[in-house]
Amino acid sequence: MAAKNLKRVALLTGGGDCPGLNPAIRGAVLRLAQEGVECLGMREGWRGMIEGKADPLTPADVAWIVGKGGTILGTSRTNPYKKEGGVEKVAETFKKLELDALIAMGGEDTLGVASKLWTERKLPVIGVPKTMDNDLSATDYTFGFDTAATVAVDAAERLRDTGLSHRRVMLLEVMGRHAGWVALFTGLAAGADYVCLPERPVDVKDMAAKVKAAFAARKTALVVASEAVDLPGETVKKELDEFGHEVLKSRGVAERLTEALEKETGLEVRSAVIGHIQRGGAPTLFDRILGTRVGVKAAELALAGDFGNMVALKGNAVVPVSLKEATAKLKTVDKEWLDLLDRLTAISGKTPVAA
Amino acid sequence: MAAKNLKRVALLTGGGDCPGLNPAIRGAVLRLAQEGVECLGMREGWRGMIEGKADPLTPADVAWIVGKGGTILGTSRTNPYKKEGGVEKVAETFKKLELDALIAMGGEDTLGVASKLWTERKLPVIGVPKTMDNDLSATDYTFGFDTAATVAVDAAERLRDTGLSHRRVMLLEVMGRHAGWVALFTGLAAGADYVCLPERPVDVKDMAAKVKAAFAARKTALVVASEAVDLPGETVKKELDEFGHEVLKSRGVAERLTEALEKETGLEVRSAVIGHIQRGGAPTLFDRILGTRVGVKAAELALAGDFGNMVALKGNAVVPVSLKEATAKLKTVDKEWLDLLDRLTAISGKTPVAA
Amino acid sequence: MAAKNLKRVALLTGGGDCPGLNPAIRGAVLRLAQEGVECLGMREGWRGMIEGKADPLTPADVAWIVGKGGTILGTSRTNPYKKEGGVEKVAETFKKLELDALIAMGGEDTLGVASKLWTERKLPVIGVPKTMDNDLSATDYTFGFDTAATVAVDAAERLRDTGLSHRRVMLLEVMGRHAGWVALFTGLAAGADYVCLPERPVDVKDMAAKVKAAFAARKTALVVASEAVDLPGETVKKELDEFGHEVLKSRGVAERLTEALEKETGLEVRSAVIGHIQRGGAPTLFDRILGTRVGVKAAELALAGDFGNMVALKGNAVVPVSLKEATAKLKTVDKEWLDLLDRLTAISGKTPVAA
Amino acid sequence: MAAKNLKRVALLTGGGDCPGLNPAIRGAVLRLAQEGVECLGMREGWRGMIEGKADPLTPADVAWIVGKGGTILGTSRTNPYKKEGGVEKVAETFKKLELDALIAMGGEDTLGVASKLWTERKLPVIGVPKTMDNDLSATDYTFGFDTAATVAVDAAERLRDTGLSHRRVMLLEVMGRHAGWVALFTGLAAGADYVCLPERPVDVKDMAAKVKAAFAARKTALVVASEAVDLPGETVKKELDEFGHEVLKSRGVAERLTEALEKETGLEVRSAVIGHIQRGGAPTLFDRILGTRVGVKAAELALAGDFGNMVALKGNAVVPVSLKEATAKLKTVDKEWLDLLDRLTAISGKTPVAA
Repeated sequence: MAAKNLKRVALLTGGGDCPGLNPAIRGAVLRLAQEGVECLGMREGWRGMIEGKADPLTPADVAWIVGKGGTILGTSRTNPYKKEGGVEKVAETFKKLELDALIAMGGEDTLGVASKLWTERKLPVIGVPKTMDNDLSATDYTFGFDTAATVAVDAAERLRDTGLSHRRVMLLEVMGRHAGWVALFTGLAAGADYVCLPERPVDVKDMAAKVKAAFAARKTALVVASEAVDLPGETVKKELDEFGHEVLKSRGVAERLTEALEKETGLEVRSAVIGHIQRGGAPTLFDRILGTRVGVKAAELALAGDFGNMVALKGNAVVPVSLKEATAKLKTVDKEWLDLLDRLTAISGKTPVAA
Repeated sequence: MAAKNLKRVALLTGGGDCPGLNPAIRGAVLRLAQEGVECLGMREGWRGMIEGKADPLTPADVAWIVGKGGTILGTSRTNPYKKEGGVEKVAETFKKLELDALIAMGGEDTLGVASKLWTERKLPVIGVPKTMDNDLSATDYTFGFDTAATVAVDAAERLRDTGLSHRRVMLLEVMGRHAGWVALFTGLAAGADYVCLPERPVDVKDMAAKVKAAFAARKTALVVASEAVDLPGETVKKELDEFGHEVLKSRGVAERLTEALEKETGLEVRSAVIGHIQRGGAPTLFDRILGTRVGVKAAELALAGDFGNMVALKGNAVVPVSLKEATAKLKTVDKEWLDLLDRLTAISGKTPVAA
Repeated sequence: MAAKNLKRVALLTGGGDCPGLNPAIRGAVLRLAQEGVECLGMREGWRGMIEGKADPLTPADVAWIVGKGGTILGTSRTNPYKKEGGVEKVAETFKKLELDALIAMGGEDTLGVASKLWTERKLPVIGVPKTMDNDLSATDYTFGFDTAATVAVDAAERLRDTGLSHRRVMLLEVMGRHAGWVALFTGLAAGADYVCLPERPVDVKDMAAKVKAAFAARKTALVVASEAVDLPGETVKKELDEFGHEVLKSRGVAERLTEALEKETGLEVRSAVIGHIQRGGAPTLFDRILGTRVGVKAAELALAGDFGNMVALKGNAVVPVSLKEATAKLKTVDKEWLDLLDRLTAISGKTPVAA
Repeated sequence: MAAKNLKRVALLTGGGDCPGLNPAIRGAVLRLAQEGVECLGMREGWRGMIEGKADPLTPADVAWIVGKGGTILGTSRTNPYKKEGGVEKVAETFKKLELDALIAMGGEDTLGVASKLWTERKLPVIGVPKTMDNDLSATDYTFGFDTAATVAVDAAERLRDTGLSHRRVMLLEVMGRHAGWVALFTGLAAGADYVCLPERPVDVKDMAAKVKAAFAARKTALVVASEAVDLPGETVKKELDEFGHEVLKSRGVAERLTEALEKETGLEVRSAVIGHIQRGGAPTLFDRILGTRVGVKAAELALAGDFGNMVALKGNAVVPVSLKEATAKLKTVDKEWLDLLDRLTAISGKTPVAA
């Protein structure tokens, strides 16, 4: 792992923040410091690279951030490819700050920029994937996801308490625009009676049947739904993909599903939307360990001059994958997981659930 | 504390559920069992009294409920005075089940029924106050409130994490229709930069000035708002009091305040509504102790034949107060607390907050 | 509240740390800053006053410490009255740093020093009480206590999970050298089957009977014990008072009670000692609010020139009490609380607990 | 997945309990119920099989246990191979209760019994691994581990709060007799300055140097140590392996390391032992999902008649491995993880950690 020429490395975090970014920053900085490499923290994602705004980032700065939510570097949705002259300015910042490498932590958008900077400009970039939605196909898990689902499970269990007291059906809307991983894990871990995922349209009759059976047995029922779920005839998922959240502000999933459920079951349904609450807070153990590992690995790729790659979790190993392929495909909930979900929420013909 | 004739006591929980009901149920049942008194749990509030539906309630049933959210008895908003023949049926249930006393746990509505049953019918009723909003004037604190504010503080701190990362202002809407206690305590305990209470209309200029100052100093700002807050010219609080939540579904406080704040400050503002998530979950230490104490005291009032009273926390003592006076007046955030709040969120002319 | 001459106020935290100190520091600093008063943070309790070591303490420094455990000022057990020339040096520091007031936050020892400095030297001192043990008679509650008991309840509930799985009796040793408040509240809030307090010697037969009854009914039992409890014939409490913890290192309460319980009941007993884990962590809502209130009040006493006092919670009000009387008497668990405890852990002759 | 003849399956949990057992029980029962298979819960591990004590286990019984710590079946350390006639009685219970399969959840000991029953008696057994220590080589992770390390991280962070306030070094002793996984993950996730593992003797000079460097930079330092760590010249690990905990009761790791650290560094060191507190409590998301998956998979192996296997996590897949190989080898912390740990706690010659 010779890194003769590596003297200064910049780090940035872009796109939506999530728990685990700070452990990743810490891992990278400690690993680089160990080899005598200086680190710079770019302010607020690609904006910092465009404007040349950076702060020193020493081991002292990261000593106690492993348990902190968010990102100490700040973040933004700035994309140099969408700003007049943005890419040139990024290249200039590389020169001006004498950067030997840039570690860019972010989701699809951030990594897409990183990929192009490497491919088109040969800028020495390394990517660290981040998405609470866990929907990047090139890595098994991304940090932020475990924490997000953990927060959602806590909310779901609170809802069940009040649902049981009031003899109501409770519905929790969680994050997940393109893929239903958060809803899936929340539902499995909270023992939900039904889970609505963007991977398939809601079968209202099926949902109602299961909710009614659960309610009959236990005086309450719990439904977990992804934010981008279609009821029959709807195209919400498509609209969200195209236009983003703004278009749907007044009629979210929680509202539409509640209406459909009340109508179909005749039961009282109440909902809650977890929203931004899910983004913050101390990362879980899983996200701290994963964040630390990928941060260290990104540093080691930089030390090895192994640019144009993203670090990925494959089984138990943290490995490099080409940035190009990294952002190519969305990872949605596959058949094996759907089967598991269906089996756990099934109503057996022979032994009714909780009969 | 002779209770020669007390043989059977019924318990019920009415209105919105909240953490602390189970400790109160446990306290009452254990205390009564100790004197050999049999307990019955009425199903789902006054509905159980109207329909005569009850279950035995033994020390074994309550052994481990002190840490459980909600109410094991179930609850409803059924009011015998609003049901044809309801009061007669309640009186019949008293006779049929040979009840020597009824301990009714609930908020304004439930306690109002209890009060009338005692005054008008001389039915041997004792009240236990419960409201997450902490707005009953006859008692210093009600259980449920500490847990609700604790959950809200956790949410507020999560919001701040993501707010700081994104350089955004974050706004959290919490419960509190008639009084701002939840918003007040949440704001104080989370170190909010501004708190909007139903006790006074929002001064948008003042809020914007403080939010901008906080943002300038710390790159984020946190606003906590009660669900029933009026902006200048609005009558939301009045409408909520009259018509309930249904009327306002599409334009809650979070949305209206966000719009006003963005316009006035030019900053990016994001909001979250905690909603039903705040109702459930394990009660905090404070609510477990308070719930236990008032439950035990209610049992002792029953044992002493001291009917027509509600148990109340006054300073450090749990004491009886007449049910009539108990529900007479709303307790809103008073000047002393408002002053404290204003001092902690003030911008000093001499030493700017967080300069 | 005229404070014409107040220009500079120092703050210190002494003795064992506890959650709530930071909210108190924040409250005092924000309130003083609002009046244009400059604050200094003395380093590590009275040591800072002796050595003249201080740091500026601005609103910016305290902006986000309300949720942080420990004390940002550091603490020590240094006592100027036990150091050659210590008191003179404290007086010199007052002069040298041009202090108009000192707010000293701490327990019996720290407040005792504050009291003497005022009485003997007329140094303008104000006290803020702090003890996780809640054993100061001059105030209803001290911050730190609610958090300590909350942590202990969490531990107790974890122990019960494993106790039930293994059909074992579980015993938790908590803090509380002179008074049993932590054990009492932990026991009540965790639904313990027996609680051992320093206020009375353990009645081993009674404990064994109740533990056996609970075990028979529920396949586990939970005992909570204060660290300074005497078994029959022991003088541990007295020794602890005289010599401190060192003398007892190898045979703590957990070990002695476990042995006694196993012998008397024939059941398998396992124990855990919570120890220093109980000192740290984010303060609870209660401790944040209480800390904030007493901190603000201490600042207001300083502004009013009302020296020689400690702030105290009396009922719902935060009021000044003379430092002299403040440290005069220990507050132990009184009969009313002992009765409540005994009633909740009693075995009724007629209806056995959890039969 | 035809299971024509499967009519009745028994489940048991043996050895030390841990969070995740209930999700696994739930997963297996729901999956089997879906196919119309009846489930029995054996009481308290192998003891239930020897004594023929079982209870029906329906979907209703497991509906809400996914978030509960411990095991609803009870557990014991009973080993039929160490009981006169034990194995015969197990075989008889199979017959008497007409069991078509047995799912045995447990650690090395429990799985060892399962393995022999299959190999020697051809009893239709399937294993589900469980160990908080994560030291089974046949599976990547076992449930219970993530929760145990999560609880330890929380304790470590509390210790740091008080350590920083008092300018002390804090030491946390965690579980892990044969392998240091809990200490490793706790240390990484809490940002410890040194971690002592059973995989290698403690280098006291190295530990002291790093602790002193950390203390110099941050006024506190955190050490995490496994319960079975040797100081130079000690054979504690070996003794523990041979004789168990009893032999070492009075001089645990915490005490020995504290003494060595104080002597070597001249700093004040305080320690805490987390002990049984680490065993209980709600399973984390990770452990709920893993428990659920292996429980379902065990049911599917039973349905497929695939006996003599244990379910294991390999990368992202849950797969069967032969019970024989499953218990053959201990999984200790390997070089890759040790390197990661050393890099994160290293003191660079060029850029001192947290200088």
